[in-house]
Amino acid sequence: MEKNNNRAEISRAQLLRTLENGETKVFRKRFLDMHFYDQAQFYLSLDEAQRQKLYRVLNPHEMGDFFDTIEDDLPQMSDLLREMAPQYAADLLNDMFDDNAADILEHLPKEDVNRYLSLMSKPDAIELRKLLHYDTETAGGIMTTDFVSLSADLSVGQALAELKREAAEAETIYYVYLVDADQLLVGVITLRDLIVNDNHTKLADVMTVNVITTSVHDEQADVAQKIRDYNFIALPVVDDDQKLVGIITVDDAIEVIDDEASSDYSGLAGVDVDDVSENPFKSASKRLPWLITLLFLGMSTATLINHYESLLSEASILAVFISLITGTAGNAGTQSLAVAVRRLALGNDKKPRLFKLVFGEILTGVVTGVITGLTVMVIVGIWKQNLMLGLTIGLAMAAAITVANLAGSLIPMLMDKLGFDPAVASGPFITTLSDLTSVLIYFSIAQLFIRAFIG
Amino acid sequence: MEKNNNRAEISRAQLLRTLENGETKVFRKRFLDMHFYDQAQFYLSLDEAQRQKLYRVLNPHEMGDFFDTIEDDLPQMSDLLREMAPQYAADLLNDMFDDNAADILEHLPKEDVNRYLSLMSKPDAIELRKLLHYDTETAGGIMTTDFVSLSADLSVGQALAELKREAAEAETIYYVYLVDADQLLVGVITLRDLIVNDNHTKLADVMTVNVITTSVHDEQADVAQKIRDYNFIALPVVDDDQKLVGIITVDDAIEVIDDEASSDYSGLAGVDVDDVSENPFKSASKRLPWLITLLFLGMSTATLINHYESLLSEASILAVFISLITGTAGNAGTQSLAVAVRRLALGNDKKPRLFKLVFGEILTGVVTGVITGLTVMVIVGIWKQNLMLGLTIGLAMAAAITVANLAGSLIPMLMDKLGFDPAVASGPFITTLSDLTSVLIYFSIAQLFIRAFIG
Repeated sequence: MEKNNNRAEISRAQLLRTLENGETKVFRKRFLDMHFYDQAQFYLSLDEAQRQKLYRVLNPHEMGDFFDTIEDDLPQMSDLLREMAPQYAADLLNDMFDDNAADILEHLPKEDVNRYLSLMSKPDAIELRKLLHYDTETAGGIMTTDFVSLSADLSVGQALAELKREAAEAETIYYVYLVDADQLLVGVITLRDLIVNDNHTKLADVMTVNVITTSVHDEQADVAQKIRDYNFIALPVVDDDQKLVGIITVDDAIEVIDDEASSDYSGLAGVDVDDVSENPFKSASKRLPWLITLLFLGMSTATLINHYESLLSEASILAVFISLITGTAGNAGTQSLAVAVRRLALGNDKKPRLFKLVFGEILTGVVTGVITGLTVMVIVGIWKQNLMLGLTIGLAMAAAITVANLAGSLIPMLMDKLGFDPAVASGPFITTLSDLTSVLIYFSIAQLFIRAFIG
Repeated sequence: MEKNNNRAEISRAQLLRTLENGETKVFRKRFLDMHFYDQAQFYLSLDEAQRQKLYRVLNPHEMGDFFDTIEDDLPQMSDLLREMAPQYAADLLNDMFDDNAADILEHLPKEDVNRYLSLMSKPDAIELRKLLHYDTETAGGIMTTDFVSLSADLSVGQALAELKREAAEAETIYYVYLVDADQLLVGVITLRDLIVNDNHTKLADVMTVNVITTSVHDEQADVAQKIRDYNFIALPVVDDDQKLVGIITVDDAIEVIDDEASSDYSGLAGVDVDDVSENPFKSASKRLPWLITLLFLGMSTATLINHYESLLSEASILAVFISLITGTAGNAGTQSLAVAVRRLALGNDKKPRLFKLVFGEILTGVVTGVITGLTVMVIVGIWKQNLMLGLTIGLAMAAAITVANLAGSLIPMLMDKLGFDPAVASGPFITTLSDLTSVLIYFSIAQLFIRAFIG
């Protein structure tokens, strides 16, 4: 791997030299021979002066080819567009697949969007305007209109001839959608089926009629799950009148699956992990708001302990077990939160019922709480030679774990019911909240039993 | 969605009735008309008696079609195989794509594997044995040998004719790999290219020669990332002699991406979130080992606090801030852990250098620590009207956060260097460890300053 990296590094430097030295012909030959993804990586490694040179030696069509593969950092992409001549940028957008072009335009100010659209070909501008209309996290927001649809009356041979004409424009030609005169979807046929069947066969006789579709309004996570379940390369999107309006390709589904997973992960950690900025000050500024917010929630736990100061000075042994109880309950709450968020992320038809989930988590909480509580009771009883102290700690532990488990599952479920993303209920939030309830439970129980254990 | 679910439920019940009543013809027509994924879902919803009926009305080939779409619960799948007649099971495995068949066989005892392989056609058994040889989490372990490779000397028309013959056996025909007499990969051509070009064109003239490949030994996560980066439908796998031995398709890449994401997520939470068993006792038994292990680690924190009992009885106010300091440092450690694990999950060529990461995290820790420390110093100073107490708490907080940040990034990095999966360093482990260091820091600083704040 190391070796490969070095070799790649050397060839990148050589390529850059040909660009810098104005050896246009050599540069173009070698650059255009690379995969689009590698072209994009080369482009993204340039500084502005170098990029300006690139804009002079590549036409907007050649730029568009690799711009289509850039999926991260969309806000930065709009800065890149602004450094190009407006007509060049418009031509580039025009040449991209329209779902990718729309993703970029969404991050631009309105006046920029209008300017670029006015410089484009009219039909493309109209398509793009339609796409910009949909919510970004729905099927409509991620679909492309660059698909192939044909009439089911054609023969296999006619369809292949038609595909040959449309191949350059379409994002995939591996699925061909068959529609009637009203654009209603009546079937689908794969390029594989076309190849296998004889040229004179009618499409209507070999097409699949039970087409799995998604609505423009469906959530992107559900759409991606469907593509994954059925192992599709593309999924057709229909509007409210069941008319075919677009398709979503498997590469977009992968991006959605990864984005959703990483936002769940970020939620659990209380930090945006996709912001892999390597500037420590920037990282700190991203993490501090959460830390400070939680600090204030933590202050209420401190205030609560302060309230019990007389109890603490009477039995300072109580202080020894504060972090054990809050820590263990926090761990249990984190486990329960993670499971709840993951279950809620399952597709709508796979989600368990609310009641069942809550009841299950209460029971899991009680079982883990009781067993952990018994364990700590025995340990503390033996260590401190004080059975009543052990019982106090064990009881508090059991109750604190049960409550933390319940909070860890209830809070994301409530957020889901209220229409929020359950992943926003972060791990640090649950542990900090659980600190508060654990301390309350601990000191309440200790107050009840104090005569017994300081005897 | 609700409505659709109900409708699907009703049609499922009707379909089941035709199976139960022995209306074989009606059942077969309706069942075989469904998508393979839906067939699999129906099959997985049956009890054993119903499944036995299904085995009688479907042949192994028809079973194999939908068995290919089942990707979860492989251990359970092997139980399903065992309830079939051995020859039926062998024929089913024979009919599946060989990567999927190998995934199932990996979960069977050796004698079962040998029996099924002996009942299969010889060439298939040999291919499967080869696949079983590779590590499960490498390219070799997830690849299929059901791909199409042709000689580059053919013309487009000849290639299309060849594809037509091989289509039934291959997992994808959208990429055709071109090899020389020694099976060395010399180029690739997409079905799209074949359709667009004229029949008499030589493949050698239109193929892509810079083929992106992966080695059989590459880690599955890196392979999946490559497929994602390049938007491939399949990626060719070569052995140590650069011979083409298999391909990995995009649907397998999606499974890998999702598995890796969910194992990172599980690691952060300290619980296997993919075990969505709805039995609360089972869930509890899965979570308890972690909780009890961490309880013992937490006991060392309690012992440490116990060690400082005389300090605590002298200044019981110190107990008020234990959970604030451990909690906040734990939150910071979780953030840092999540970022480190995520960065380490990036492909080998995108990983930041160890030194840079550690230095960055120390700096991030110091900045967040100082700012959070200052905040808590001011709050405590005002609340308790005791500047020196505020300073003690603030200093302890700053130091505890810095150390927690360092641990959160160093531990996963060390695990990665030592060849372990960094995601195993779970969030609960880091917070519990950070409790210990935070308490140590807190009481050490408090001991130094005690004369100043209790005056």
